[in-house]
Amino acid sequence: MKLDLARDDSIPLYMQIVHRVSHLIERGVLTPGTRLPTVRRMAQEQGLGRMTVQTAYAELQAQGWIESVVGRGTFVAERPQAQALPQAISPRVEVPGSLAALLETQAPMARLVLGQAAPAEETFPVKNFKACLNAALSKVSHLAYGSVLGEESLRARMSRLLITRGLAVPPESVVISSGAQQAIELAIRTLTTPDQSVAVEAPVYPGVLEVLASRRQRILEVPVEEQGLSLVQLEKLMLRDRPALLYTVPTFQNPTGTVTSLEHRKALLRMAEEYDFYILEDDVYGHLAFDEPAPPCLKSLDESGRVIYLTSFSKTLMPALRLGAVVASPRQLAAFTQKKQTADLVSSSLMQAALAEFLRRGYYDLHLQRVKELYRERRDSACQTVDDVLPEVRYWVPRGGLSMWLQLPAESDEAALFLQARKRGLVVARGEPFFARPQPRGFLRLSFAAVSRPKFRQAANTLAELLKEQRRALHRGLSSN
Amino acid sequence: MKLDLARDDSIPLYMQIVHRVSHLIERGVLTPGTRLPTVRRMAQEQGLGRMTVQTAYAELQAQGWIESVVGRGTFVAERPQAQALPQAISPRVEVPGSLAALLETQAPMARLVLGQAAPAEETFPVKNFKACLNAALSKVSHLAYGSVLGEESLRARMSRLLITRGLAVPPESVVISSGAQQAIELAIRTLTTPDQSVAVEAPVYPGVLEVLASRRQRILEVPVEEQGLSLVQLEKLMLRDRPALLYTVPTFQNPTGTVTSLEHRKALLRMAEEYDFYILEDDVYGHLAFDEPAPPCLKSLDESGRVIYLTSFSKTLMPALRLGAVVASPRQLAAFTQKKQTADLVSSSLMQAALAEFLRRGYYDLHLQRVKELYRERRDSACQTVDDVLPEVRYWVPRGGLSMWLQLPAESDEAALFLQARKRGLVVARGEPFFARPQPRGFLRLSFAAVSRPKFRQAANTLAELLKEQRRALHRGLSSN
Repeated sequence: MKLDLARDDSIPLYMQIVHRVSHLIERGVLTPGTRLPTVRRMAQEQGLGRMTVQTAYAELQAQGWIESVVGRGTFVAERPQAQALPQAISPRVEVPGSLAALLETQAPMARLVLGQAAPAEETFPVKNFKACLNAALSKVSHLAYGSVLGEESLRARMSRLLITRGLAVPPESVVISSGAQQAIELAIRTLTTPDQSVAVEAPVYPGVLEVLASRRQRILEVPVEEQGLSLVQLEKLMLRDRPALLYTVPTFQNPTGTVTSLEHRKALLRMAEEYDFYILEDDVYGHLAFDEPAPPCLKSLDESGRVIYLTSFSKTLMPALRLGAVVASPRQLAAFTQKKQTADLVSSSLMQAALAEFLRRGYYDLHLQRVKELYRERRDSACQTVDDVLPEVRYWVPRGGLSMWLQLPAESDEAALFLQARKRGLVVARGEPFFARPQPRGFLRLSFAAVSRPKFRQAANTLAELLKEQRRALHRGLSSN
Repeated sequence: MKLDLARDDSIPLYMQIVHRVSHLIERGVLTPGTRLPTVRRMAQEQGLGRMTVQTAYAELQAQGWIESVVGRGTFVAERPQAQALPQAISPRVEVPGSLAALLETQAPMARLVLGQAAPAEETFPVKNFKACLNAALSKVSHLAYGSVLGEESLRARMSRLLITRGLAVPPESVVISSGAQQAIELAIRTLTTPDQSVAVEAPVYPGVLEVLASRRQRILEVPVEEQGLSLVQLEKLMLRDRPALLYTVPTFQNPTGTVTSLEHRKALLRMAEEYDFYILEDDVYGHLAFDEPAPPCLKSLDESGRVIYLTSFSKTLMPALRLGAVVASPRQLAAFTQKKQTADLVSSSLMQAALAEFLRRGYYDLHLQRVKELYRERRDSACQTVDDVLPEVRYWVPRGGLSMWLQLPAESDEAALFLQARKRGLVVARGEPFFARPQPRGFLRLSFAAVSRPKFRQAANTLAELLKEQRRALHRGLSSN
């Protein structure tokens, strides 16, 4: 097979393979059922490493171009169903309150709330935090305005903490924000003008879509795959739409729980250089790895200052801290800080001092160990429960974070399911707000971290019953027509 | 004197007098030195109340059209110097960091910080607040996300507290913000589009100018007088530029400490109706009245939903709470809340619960009594000190709030004074950032609340020395030329 790969091109080789092969299929040169060379053979033919070919085949398969049959080989798919290049949304239809809906826990008789990507309340280290808060209160200046950049003590602690995410930066490179949502809004305003388009993962945290919608900014969706966002789709967008910024959660993506592999991270950074765009890396789940350690954050691999990194303590510790942090170049931080002071002047110096003390005493490390163990168990049993009770639902096993993303069977009605569940006191997050283009697609996000094993099973049972009812109603409708 | 006043016009009668008289002077009908009728006589002639004529004369005098000579009467000024209608600033030159400069307390060897409009740290009710914070920590849900609108307990307490500002609204009309700065930014974004111009007082809190500058929004300056902003100048702007919004601090204005009288408040609301604009009322100093009680807030007099009211606890209690509140119509609050969640999701529910408890226990009332007494004493001695040590400086006696606004002698260099003071460890706020058009004007804002009597005297002495040095240097320069 002749693929004409360009060795010195900055486009990763595996991506070039994906381009060429999909192109050959599209043109009909490679017909359905055609057997592709084995990975080993292709690697030899093209003079490539086997890893490169394997990555390319995985990507081609994820996109639906090829199929792999165990023991037989890899074939061009019968009906190649490559995902169409998503349309740019310009501007997004505003969905007021989609964030508020996620925060809603006060539904009538809400007995079971699995809709928030929030840590379990029973894990809150109240006693230790209380001690730190009272220690912080001993200094009266902790109740004054403080600095726009954040408390020095916390910036220094953050600098040390981020080493665990592969990031070695001095305290001066860290600025404190009032949580991740503020960091996201201000970073988008720092890095782009409203006339520039922004690429996001699909599905994506709705808070990002709301920021972009409020600025009437063009949104480009890049589908998430098990290895992270689709680099091939991203590259196509880059060639066509030239977005100025990519927002991504490479580590335990919200809502899917997927992880962008190290190789994909490096490729992403090369693409940012090649196509001249910024990356806003949201790492709020980075410390919640359940299985193998999380890959180093993108920012730690960033040599050209294209990545702005942000994190917070709302997912790992307690949302009421309202504290996050941003790492960027001095110039980016200066622009960010200017916007930060216009937005809310400063973040609470008392909360910052208390959190710095919490970190200093080693309470955070202890806490992370505890919650990771608990959430891993809950993740395991949640997956087991879904497999048992909702076998028709598809999902990726979350590698970390707080929630899982369920694809409902084709005939189910996501919106109706959401409302029916609410009536029974079960609050879940609907899929729709996680996409730039609001349309019913049949997804739910469940927080496995928020509830105990029996409660999760109860929730899954409720969903199973409701799905069954939907199916019955559908069939009744079909047979009566 | 024939004035052709229109009784049923919605323009207040006293303003009509101001218009007509100034018009007659401008046209040369009334020549310099002409004696005007006495207030009593004019009232009789025109069939008006004496108060109306008195207000008109005061306004004409404030604008420089007429002069009053004790024992002789009121005359057309020799050289009528009515303030020229200020130019619209479009858009304001951005002065990055002017807010940061105000927050700066870390100047090398800053021994005396009078630059912040912040409460005195020694007044912070640490013990009582600690008790409330620890009480709030007993409920684990206070560490979770909470509601976008704010904690119910705090909204209910705010509803009760605002009665002391003349405002009777249910808890549903109150939304919690992360301090006043956030409320200002989000209200401006709620009430105006970037292509609409906004009127502000001159001088004005720089945080407002930064918001408008970041949106590249046209700014119209309305000069502040002892009775509050000049209604006549505002009306001229309304006729010419039709701003969509007026931002005002009617009660203990920042930086001047002036109060808009009840009559002026009513006139302002009539104008808002007449010229169809919104009013953003910033009442952060409303609870800090030193002399007579503060007039009821504008919002309490608002019958047409044109006023959005905001307040905070940073000036009266402690800045590190980062909590404020907004009162508006249901529709305005819905739009505001939508922007609030995009900005920072929620304000800390822990801080809100602690503050609600602080209010519930009556600690806030106690605290207000204490700080008002202290600040009144400090205000009195600060005025005495300025009269003694800086007799060439002009100022209005602040009726409440935290700071006073000094007009320096004509020949002084505000920027140089600021820097020279800083070198000596004295931090004051320069006048320049308080105006939309940055130009040296010779003003300083001093916080009399922040420091003890001897420290304020020390600061005044330093300023007196520096002003003397500036004068000497100026005269040396003049005589050597």
